[in-house]
Amino acid sequence: MTAYLLTVGDEILIGQITDTNSTWMAQELNLQGIRIAGKASVSDTKEAIIRGLKDAFEQADLILVTGGLGATKDDITKKTIAEYFNTEMVWHQETYNRLEGFFTKAGRTVSEMNRNSCYMPADAVILNNDRGLAPAMWFSVSSKILVSLPGVPFEMMHLMKHKVLPKLREVAAQSEHPNLALSPIVHRTVLTAGEGETMLAERLSDFEDQLPENVKLAYLPAISQVRLRLTATGDSEPKLNTQIEALKDKLVAIVGRSVFGYETEVLSSNIGKQLIEKDMTIGLAESCSGGYLSHLFTLEAGSSKYFKGAVVAYDNELKVKLLKVKIRTLKKYGAVSEETAIEMALGAKKLLNTSLALSITGIAGPTGGSPEKPVGLVWLAITDGVNTKTHKFTMDRGRAKTIEYAANIGLNLIRRFL
Amino acid sequence: MTAYLLTVGDEILIGQITDTNSTWMAQELNLQGIRIAGKASVSDTKEAIIRGLKDAFEQADLILVTGGLGATKDDITKKTIAEYFNTEMVWHQETYNRLEGFFTKAGRTVSEMNRNSCYMPADAVILNNDRGLAPAMWFSVSSKILVSLPGVPFEMMHLMKHKVLPKLREVAAQSEHPNLALSPIVHRTVLTAGEGETMLAERLSDFEDQLPENVKLAYLPAISQVRLRLTATGDSEPKLNTQIEALKDKLVAIVGRSVFGYETEVLSSNIGKQLIEKDMTIGLAESCSGGYLSHLFTLEAGSSKYFKGAVVAYDNELKVKLLKVKIRTLKKYGAVSEETAIEMALGAKKLLNTSLALSITGIAGPTGGSPEKPVGLVWLAITDGVNTKTHKFTMDRGRAKTIEYAANIGLNLIRRFL
Repeated sequence: MTAYLLTVGDEILIGQITDTNSTWMAQELNLQGIRIAGKASVSDTKEAIIRGLKDAFEQADLILVTGGLGATKDDITKKTIAEYFNTEMVWHQETYNRLEGFFTKAGRTVSEMNRNSCYMPADAVILNNDRGLAPAMWFSVSSKILVSLPGVPFEMMHLMKHKVLPKLREVAAQSEHPNLALSPIVHRTVLTAGEGETMLAERLSDFEDQLPENVKLAYLPAISQVRLRLTATGDSEPKLNTQIEALKDKLVAIVGRSVFGYETEVLSSNIGKQLIEKDMTIGLAESCSGGYLSHLFTLEAGSSKYFKGAVVAYDNELKVKLLKVKIRTLKKYGAVSEETAIEMALGAKKLLNTSLALSITGIAGPTGGSPEKPVGLVWLAITDGVNTKTHKFTMDRGRAKTIEYAANIGLNLIRRFL
Repeated sequence: MTAYLLTVGDEILIGQITDTNSTWMAQELNLQGIRIAGKASVSDTKEAIIRGLKDAFEQADLILVTGGLGATKDDITKKTIAEYFNTEMVWHQETYNRLEGFFTKAGRTVSEMNRNSCYMPADAVILNNDRGLAPAMWFSVSSKILVSLPGVPFEMMHLMKHKVLPKLREVAAQSEHPNLALSPIVHRTVLTAGEGETMLAERLSDFEDQLPENVKLAYLPAISQVRLRLTATGDSEPKLNTQIEALKDKLVAIVGRSVFGYETEVLSSNIGKQLIEKDMTIGLAESCSGGYLSHLFTLEAGSSKYFKGAVVAYDNELKVKLLKVKIRTLKKYGAVSEETAIEMALGAKKLLNTSLALSITGIAGPTGGSPEKPVGLVWLAITDGVNTKTHKFTMDRGRAKTIEYAANIGLNLIRRFL
């Protein structure tokens, strides 16, 4: 099955919002084995929408349209699609009931405009929206399918996951049209940190060469991490699961200690789980990363169980006063040095009264570098009070990237220390 | 003039990257008075690219193509465009010289593959890329223009700003084709913080009604901020500048103290400038915001001049030990209260030895709320040691949003205090 993604709305064409819906949809559809033939954004005019629909139908079997389903006058996707399919609009009591329930709960009455939004194309199967007002509409046209979805990301995602994708698998299983077929497909994602794509690819070269024809390995890089995704296609899902589990174990054995988790796990929450298991806490001393690693930890709900806090010692005065870095150390080795990183970590452990402490000190740039200590040089140290490990890297791809990278290297250092 | 944006590359269609190029391009083109007729993403195949080009030429006067200009085999945009225009490929010495210079500097020799990338379509005007290897190509076809650009965002942006947009204005001024005309257009952006779009719109209602026909006002909302953009079109740029300056002053007088800056300024750097002017420093005590506001400050180059550091006191133990919040206060009012926020700010000021200190304490969720103190409740306090101001808000749109919002409210609180 091939799909085409069509977004409707001037807010995308004037650059007011970035279309992240289609990125998410493409990922989800790919996971089902559906290839994206193309995607387009059109403006909120009848002509543009109709042209977009024609182009889409020429290029794919499944057309997913997002946006333009609000109750206001400028949202014309629904009536334009109805016109395109030459189907009349009929009253949809269930949509009205849901809408009335929503307004009653909010202590408001249903306006004429909202009432009018409860007419739906007669040929459409209505998929209720459990996260908002506008439902999705499913049209079957001979061997093709069109689904119109609201453009609000969390409404669209909820509808896709709970209504559209299940129905798609159902239709694919029942349909006799070969272009609507969906082959069984299974995925396993192995999460790694600390090694680049090239290094991993070299170590996995033989493994890749020996993969059966129905299995593919994809490298999905993120900041200081690489996700390795195995995808197997075939006729029987149970067989595929057995096959891919064995291959995944083999892959994990080769990659070894760079593996930190599976599927959608996040490194900071993986560390959190380990800390909870070991009944340990962590604290940070951040200089160049300026609070960003604290932010990564505290983004996780429940992180207060293991993350006690941090000192953002941006000024050297605070490194001395709070973290007890020796003035002599700063003078002799500088604020960006292994010696300072170690004293910062030890000082943070004591001050924050944690089991572990990590420090980060570096030159985020764009100024402040020197030939011996260039912009992008970062020192990290981790300690449990007895053992202390350090790590150094240099990466100058702009201030924001250096900060992001330093924090992620810090996470991996904690993982390895545990 | 109308434009169509075409991106080439499977990495967009499989959802590996989000197309942010077209958002940026749309904004830039809109600022020049160029309307975007539509945009599409196509895969790296000859058929898909040619279909995309045809569709684009049918819908607009200016076609901007990004991506697919690398030296590897799967990058086929250049040769496909050449084929589309039926023009031969010729050796381009200047591109080779630049490439050789780049490789020599990196201590490498030019590979056969890279050498081959120096052939360019004979009909194209080559726009040198000062940020990368692949130049942009400019094609004029009767009354239409096509520009092919590399997909790497910072290369594309640099080429657009320094080569494509200036050339476009030049061509527009000289061309006799009405569809290539560009009317003089000027913009002024007024940055506001602390007031919602609806409140501003109410206060600006009369101002908007009285705007001359050639001037438009746009509301561009961001987190706890609204940018107000005035756009004037006409025949004479100097006249438009005079007109819009007067209107901008009038708008600023109405909006008053919510205005914090102009054009592309950022609130944290605006605060930084003020602190430097007043020879003041700032420190933070972050609880629920978990280091995010420190991150916003330290993202700005040069922030070490005024930002000394922060205590991320996630655990109450640290609120007491480091920030000297009284145990009695925590017991009586709780960690999320005006009283605790005040003690945190005063404690941070003393500990970090700064002119000002701001504290943030709240319930980021999703758990930890109660009927009296719901998830999303946040208390902030700012102090200079003599005067202390507090602020409270509740916003439950998920953990990440609450953190982001709290930090931005914090910035505005600092601005107002200054």
